[in-house]
Amino acid sequence: MSEPREAGFRPVTIPCRRIWIWRDFHLHLPTSIRYACGVLFRKITIIGVGLLGGSIGLAVKRHGLAREVAGFVRRPASLKDCLDVGAVDYATLDLLAAVSNADLVVLCTPLAQMRARVMEMLPALKRGAIVTDVGSAKAGVVRELGPLIKKAGAHFVGSHPMAGAEKTGVAAARADLFVNAIWVVTPSKNTNASVIRKMERFAKSLGARTLRLPPEQHDLLVSRSSHLPHVTAAMLANLVLDPIRPRQQAALCANGFRDTTRIASGSPEMWRDIALANPKNIASSLDAFIAGLQKFQRDLKKADARSVAKFFETAKNRRDNWEKQRPALNLSEA
Amino acid sequence: MSEPREAGFRPVTIPCRRIWIWRDFHLHLPTSIRYACGVLFRKITIIGVGLLGGSIGLAVKRHGLAREVAGFVRRPASLKDCLDVGAVDYATLDLLAAVSNADLVVLCTPLAQMRARVMEMLPALKRGAIVTDVGSAKAGVVRELGPLIKKAGAHFVGSHPMAGAEKTGVAAARADLFVNAIWVVTPSKNTNASVIRKMERFAKSLGARTLRLPPEQHDLLVSRSSHLPHVTAAMLANLVLDPIRPRQQAALCANGFRDTTRIASGSPEMWRDIALANPKNIASSLDAFIAGLQKFQRDLKKADARSVAKFFETAKNRRDNWEKQRPALNLSEA
Repeated sequence: MSEPREAGFRPVTIPCRRIWIWRDFHLHLPTSIRYACGVLFRKITIIGVGLLGGSIGLAVKRHGLAREVAGFVRRPASLKDCLDVGAVDYATLDLLAAVSNADLVVLCTPLAQMRARVMEMLPALKRGAIVTDVGSAKAGVVRELGPLIKKAGAHFVGSHPMAGAEKTGVAAARADLFVNAIWVVTPSKNTNASVIRKMERFAKSLGARTLRLPPEQHDLLVSRSSHLPHVTAAMLANLVLDPIRPRQQAALCANGFRDTTRIASGSPEMWRDIALANPKNIASSLDAFIAGLQKFQRDLKKADARSVAKFFETAKNRRDNWEKQRPALNLSEA
Repeated sequence: MSEPREAGFRPVTIPCRRIWIWRDFHLHLPTSIRYACGVLFRKITIIGVGLLGGSIGLAVKRHGLAREVAGFVRRPASLKDCLDVGAVDYATLDLLAAVSNADLVVLCTPLAQMRARVMEMLPALKRGAIVTDVGSAKAGVVRELGPLIKKAGAHFVGSHPMAGAEKTGVAAARADLFVNAIWVVTPSKNTNASVIRKMERFAKSLGARTLRLPPEQHDLLVSRSSHLPHVTAAMLANLVLDPIRPRQQAALCANGFRDTTRIASGSPEMWRDIALANPKNIASSLDAFIAGLQKFQRDLKKADARSVAKFFETAKNRRDNWEKQRPALNLSEA
């Protein structure tokens, strides 16, 4: 780009390029420009176009991150849904055609189906392509898929965009789903550094904030911050809304209950797979959680007002501090 | 009211009175008229003007339910806060002056202070006055305060408006806090039927839906639907945001964690009192909750995919059904 150095113009730097504007003109960049950085991959293929896959497709298209976005779906009915939402340029039931010539393949199926999809797609996988996934448990996926994909001459790097909703399906997809969300990238020791950087650049281009973690540490940390709250929310819904309760029980569930159990409405299939993919960490988080509840229970039975008060005070302080610091949480690399 | 039976007029009945309007005129009542039913009590006194007390004051004034709304507060600084918000006509540090001549006294202090406040106010309590409270645990309050107040020639009926927020203080008070909220009224066997009806009419006048329950049943049911979620939310915040965790832990808390733990930011003093006022029910709800988690943990360790899936499916079904039926929940009397 030639630089017009005429009088009256001043240079302004935006994330991807330098443009020239009139000196008295104040440029207020729309948020979207922050991460609209042009084509990163010629062809991106999304395997499983639901809430997450569809949102990635919409965001890729909005920011022009690929020349071509293909989607693979299993059910014929999904073909039309994908196009109605505009999540991909074209959708197909043919996995090999979808993957063929793709530079980035994003696995958005439930965790339990990923290995089978990868085995099927290997013959069509381009050498040097990057394959990633969006699963909520990472160690197993990285251990299983990494070597398979490497053998085919491509690269695998696990990732976990921490965005979602209790809604499912491509109809709930949103181009801004990842804006300000945390996107964890979980390279193994063998992952090529340039692949990691490209993956992080992709996540940032969708508006996310990236965090690099070893897969095992990711699984330990999310077993507490994400999997445990899902299990407790589901347990609350199961216990309190059990049909054996008196009919007034449901009427006595107010807004506190509503929020505490919101995530219990998430996809059971997805959560079954996540739980089964991270059982040891979830079990030990549950152990710590149950031990804490039992300590509270003992204090309550002893009518130990100080300990009971401290339990609620500590919770409020930690929760309030987290909420306050949340926008500024340090995400520098592990 | 004389009824003008001239041609062209037709009668329309609104909740409190019959008015006459032109026959071609269609009356669309604003929602507020539903419960703007005129003066119910000459003087209402609110003991403790925080979120709940302040919201009651604002709603009473908005709907003209009393000629005079007095507020008792403990701290001099609160006097100005009350008036700034306009929650009461006047606030005072003098409990006897506040209560003197009141037809309805609403106790909005933390549970542990209610007995002391009632003992202090007894000399000024008007014969035939109604005293109620807004505490989240009822059996103890009804058992303790009922006889004291009866002896003074007044009536006590417990109540529990199931509205609130993690915010506290009169500055967070809102006149519409109770609109569509459940307001539980918990008479004892000795409570005068007209007192119960007057209390229910008052709650409905603030926009709430009333539910009549024996105090003991109330405490059992809310130990599951309200107290248990508070304890689990606090436990999650305590466990996950413990400063011993790696620094990435807090960054991995996303929107699911945020909603699941929102109520952990509630007033620790209030929750200490509630827990200590309902220890047996909370302990047994915790027992059932912990047993359910341990069953899930066993299924997970056995990699029992069917049971794990069923756990999440049942939760989703119960939660979705509750959400769907919520506006229409049958609140007819127990």
